Amino acid sequence: MAEQNQIKQNAYRSDGFIGKYQRLVSDTVIPYQYKVLNDKAEGAEKSHVVQNFINAGKAVRGEDPGDGFYGMVFQDSDAAKWIEAAAYSLANFPDPALEKQVDDLIDIIAAAQDEDGYLDTYFTIKDKDKRWMNLLEAHELYCAGHMIEAACAYYESTGKMRLLDVMRKNAALIYKVFVEDGHGGFPGHPEIELALMKMYHLTGDKKCLALAEYFINTRGTDPDYYRRECDARDWKVWGNDPGNGEYQQSNIPLRKAERAAGHAVRAVYLYTGMADLAAETGDGELFGACRRLWDSITKRQMYITGGIGSTVHGEAFSVDFDLPPDTAYAETCASIGLMFFASRMLENEVNGEYADVMEQAFYNTVLAGMQLDGKRFFYVNPLEVIPGISGVSPTHRHDLTQRPGWYTCACCPPNAARLISSFGKYAYGENDDTVFCHLFAAGTVSFENGMELVCETGYPYSFTVRYKVTGTGKVAVRIPHWSAEYSLAVNAESFNDAPVDGYVYIPVHGEAEIILTLDGTPRFVYASPKVPRLTGCTAVCRGPLVYCFEGADNDGDVLSLKLCTGGSIGVTEDPGLLGGTVKLAVPAVRVSQTEGLYTTSKPTETPCTAYAVPYYAWGNRGENQMRVWLPVNE
Amino acid sequence: MAEQNQIKQNAYRSDGFIGKYQRLVSDTVIPYQYKVLNDKAEGAEKSHVVQNFINAGKAVRGEDPGDGFYGMVFQDSDAAKWIEAAAYSLANFPDPALEKQVDDLIDIIAAAQDEDGYLDTYFTIKDKDKRWMNLLEAHELYCAGHMIEAACAYYESTGKMRLLDVMRKNAALIYKVFVEDGHGGFPGHPEIELALMKMYHLTGDKKCLALAEYFINTRGTDPDYYRRECDARDWKVWGNDPGNGEYQQSNIPLRKAERAAGHAVRAVYLYTGMADLAAETGDGELFGACRRLWDSITKRQMYITGGIGSTVHGEAFSVDFDLPPDTAYAETCASIGLMFFASRMLENEVNGEYADVMEQAFYNTVLAGMQLDGKRFFYVNPLEVIPGISGVSPTHRHDLTQRPGWYTCACCPPNAARLISSFGKYAYGENDDTVFCHLFAAGTVSFENGMELVCETGYPYSFTVRYKVTGTGKVAVRIPHWSAEYSLAVNAESFNDAPVDGYVYIPVHGEAEIILTLDGTPRFVYASPKVPRLTGCTAVCRGPLVYCFEGADNDGDVLSLKLCTGGSIGVTEDPGLLGGTVKLAVPAVRVSQTEGLYTTSKPTETPCTAYAVPYYAWGNRGENQMRVWLPVNE
Repeated sequence: MAEQNQIKQNAYRSDGFIGKYQRLVSDTVIPYQYKVLNDKAEGAEKSHVVQNFINAGKAVRGEDPGDGFYGMVFQDSDAAKWIEAAAYSLANFPDPALEKQVDDLIDIIAAAQDEDGYLDTYFTIKDKDKRWMNLLEAHELYCAGHMIEAACAYYESTGKMRLLDVMRKNAALIYKVFVEDGHGGFPGHPEIELALMKMYHLTGDKKCLALAEYFINTRGTDPDYYRRECDARDWKVWGNDPGNGEYQQSNIPLRKAERAAGHAVRAVYLYTGMADLAAETGDGELFGACRRLWDSITKRQMYITGGIGSTVHGEAFSVDFDLPPDTAYAETCASIGLMFFASRMLENEVNGEYADVMEQAFYNTVLAGMQLDGKRFFYVNPLEVIPGISGVSPTHRHDLTQRPGWYTCACCPPNAARLISSFGKYAYGENDDTVFCHLFAAGTVSFENGMELVCETGYPYSFTVRYKVTGTGKVAVRIPHWSAEYSLAVNAESFNDAPVDGYVYIPVHGEAEIILTLDGTPRFVYASPKVPRLTGCTAVCRGPLVYCFEGADNDGDVLSLKLCTGGSIGVTEDPGLLGGTVKLAVPAVRVSQTEGLYTTSKPTETPCTAYAVPYYAWGNRGENQMRVWLPVNE
Repeated sequence: MAEQNQIKQNAYRSDGFIGKYQRLVSDTVIPYQYKVLNDKAEGAEKSHVVQNFINAGKAVRGEDPGDGFYGMVFQDSDAAKWIEAAAYSLANFPDPALEKQVDDLIDIIAAAQDEDGYLDTYFTIKDKDKRWMNLLEAHELYCAGHMIEAACAYYESTGKMRLLDVMRKNAALIYKVFVEDGHGGFPGHPEIELALMKMYHLTGDKKCLALAEYFINTRGTDPDYYRRECDARDWKVWGNDPGNGEYQQSNIPLRKAERAAGHAVRAVYLYTGMADLAAETGDGELFGACRRLWDSITKRQMYITGGIGSTVHGEAFSVDFDLPPDTAYAETCASIGLMFFASRMLENEVNGEYADVMEQAFYNTVLAGMQLDGKRFFYVNPLEVIPGISGVSPTHRHDLTQRPGWYTCACCPPNAARLISSFGKYAYGENDDTVFCHLFAAGTVSFENGMELVCETGYPYSFTVRYKVTGTGKVAVRIPHWSAEYSLAVNAESFNDAPVDGYVYIPVHGEAEIILTLDGTPRFVYASPKVPRLTGCTAVCRGPLVYCFEGADNDGDVLSLKLCTGGSIGVTEDPGLLGGTVKLAVPAVRVSQTEGLYTTSKPTETPCTAYAVPYYAWGNRGENQMRVWLPVNE
């Protein structure tokens, strides 16, 4: 199918379920993160990120850089991600005070840029002679990527050029160093590739395209690069193993890649850049690699929640079908990156499976990453938590039972904020004559082709989606794979065209009302028997939401529950529960065995009802047991 | 109940199932290990252990110590464990050539002892001024303990004093250093405590008792000892964290211990010494601690296979009920140590639960540690192996699908050898007027109280055990907890006395034939719902044997099997299979789902028969799937 392009976030105004989250980000997350960046948030770990830019500015001017650099080597990116989130949020909710905060911060950042365009406070403050010497660990290109994204977003939202100019100058320097001067190497943490593609789409600057292409084409072609780099310097950041090419996806030319491997966030950021480049250049070989990597992730290495990177060891992909619920890593940022990748795959070919996965990742892992009050965040998103084991056992230390506050490594919270604020970019797309409704979210969107669309829906809790469309062209509405039945009405008449690759294409001339009705029947889901941990188990889903069973709804004990898949699942709206949700009542038995660790006495089974709540809302009622997959009782 | 004492191994001659294993150890394991110790085994990693003793002898005589020390800091213990295994084996199968090998090795060892009694090749060769400075890591006391055990065993088997004299002199030095001179501290790796108790039982030397008591009483009373020790030296072995008191059981006075924690082998070796000391001194407080630790292990932290220490992180106990089948550590040596602990608990009180666990550990984890041909060994004993994940996934790297050969750290193979060779010590005990039949093993045993017993049985595959007893006294026969029914006949008449704490006491005057018939019906076993991984699952056992399902018997795929616990289990003897075994046929269904990773289509279930073989024999037919716990299909 024809490819599509993302819309601009400022062409979208949202309300409903997504709008509530965007409001939460705007009202709570962004202001709190601003305090963190400025070291004014009580209880948060010291950030120093704004001060780093101030100090770097002093260094650039030849002054004493005050209290120097503090934080992670990639501390700058926290500021970038905050600006990007704020930019998208400003598109949703204009806010002059916030805009001034951003402008002031951009002034500080601009002042920290060296004359030649270099911008990275770590090296500017500490030792500018060490630039580009540690691509493996020092995250210069990663930070540049995030700041490029911020610059693009802020320009898109506000039309202000300042940060974009800064980052175009920075990108020009990087182009000179790597492409013209032949420095060699590629970023240890991919990110700049997708950012350069964004800047290219926005500005048309061919150097951005060429630089992204350079990094993607050279990666993995010189597997010893990091080893030589490491041997050539007498300093390190963490001491990463330069020989662990799988970890940083540098062991194989990307075009040859057969399976997603290594650090999951790095992987999906990289694949996003690859897919974007393939769509831009029509490079079929590169797209073929993207497609293999996509299948490797979504068909063999993805949790039902859209979580990816199942092992804490290297925050990485493991091997096929190794998807343990309880020791899962499944970093929030990795699922965000998976959404990026999916959206860029849609730019290559319109196919519902990409949007299905985007939705699966968003409504489950990404949203679960944030507490309902927007104040605490999970990096790690297990599918089973048992207090006493989770967070305590040596193999489960990373699987916390409660969301912690702000981390030293603050990647996930601002990443979630920018994703939620820019939801429209993922929900809608367009090409010449067609507008695409990938995800269902109430709101208003204006397309560059002149069409306008107003969406009304209580999704993901209601399964009726009503579109009012004006303009001339086609509306492509996705039919999610999970909807066993659906109906479409156009201007009150049934519309029966079959979906093509997951989308129904509806011609619109002037005005139309399109009503999509999806199947909101809760369903039992089963995993492939190739996933060792899940044979004999089932999970419960409704619409895009994966449900989970928490102790709070089940007398404190979900370990002894087995689900009766022969029965039907009850649906109860509860506006007072977990910010307003739908609770499911599942026929179950509770097993009981009081004879010790092992016994020949078959556990007694007492019929009961097991109650499930959406996975995204788990862990909001104190520490308790939580499980997504439960054994089946037939 | 009255306590009992272990018999001497040389009072026991075995045949049947155990005898076959003892023969394997004698014919294959001990000769192979002798080659390894002398660096003459092809394909084995370099040992150098004998050469270390030779070189240390040179150092003692003031000569150049040749090629110095090579190997682990505890390399000496390999020689000790081999001597101990050889000693027990000589009691079973007299062999002048082997005895000469041992005598010659003892000469070499004796020559490596310093004038003052010190014996440890690492320090004697490298730097004698560093003695006792690194109790945390350097394993001097651990090596001394193993050599003391070897000395006792060899004296018991052969009556030869040479090594016993060497080790009495060595123990006297340790007593002087720690008790008289007040050096302070306690062994980083416990072991010497149980060894000193052995030497005390053998020789009556009160210094051995006092030294064991000293180490047990001081341990954990000075939690900062290792920290100070570490600060006082500028060298290390591995750099163990002196602050990790839980790992080496030094964080709490042993009498206060509530739960088994830390490195599992260290723990059970230590608890063995504690239990032995408590039995000897009648120290009720110490026994109370032993009892709490026993419950902590066997009621909350033990696999159905008798495996303990569930996590690879520190080869350690995890938290209660954290017993993952697939990422299990469950070291062979830890289960051997659990047998030691159980046998010493029996010296405090005769109770069938100790022998039940001893049997559970032996017939499952300990035997599984060794390949059926006696040539390869597992350290790690998972309850589930899936090729492609096990041994490959970062969380499963330690869980190998096949037994490797000789390791650099060669603890388990000689440990299994000495345990199997000394099986009689665990199977039988006695006190003044009673002989105890803890485990069922064909053979002949002479007791110090003058009674003699001949046991005939095909156990663990036959469930009839026939004893011919001569002498006057009582025979205490254990009724295993797993035998739902049993019958006892004495001189062809039914004997109906109820068991007391798991033992039936049968008076014998002159001569008696006792026939015990146990219940060999295969049984489904269920775990407590507190074990997160096992809800909805069952395992199959018969007698003391835990069974497992291997791909080799199940069309290569056990992941898709669910067991129908409503059906009955078929029993088939197969003399040609896995060295002669009984295969079980379990009603099952095979689930099939070809729609991808997750689907709402309920997997189809095809009735089938699942075949199980004893867990101890798994992994002897090439790499394949293996599972102990399978989901239940009702």
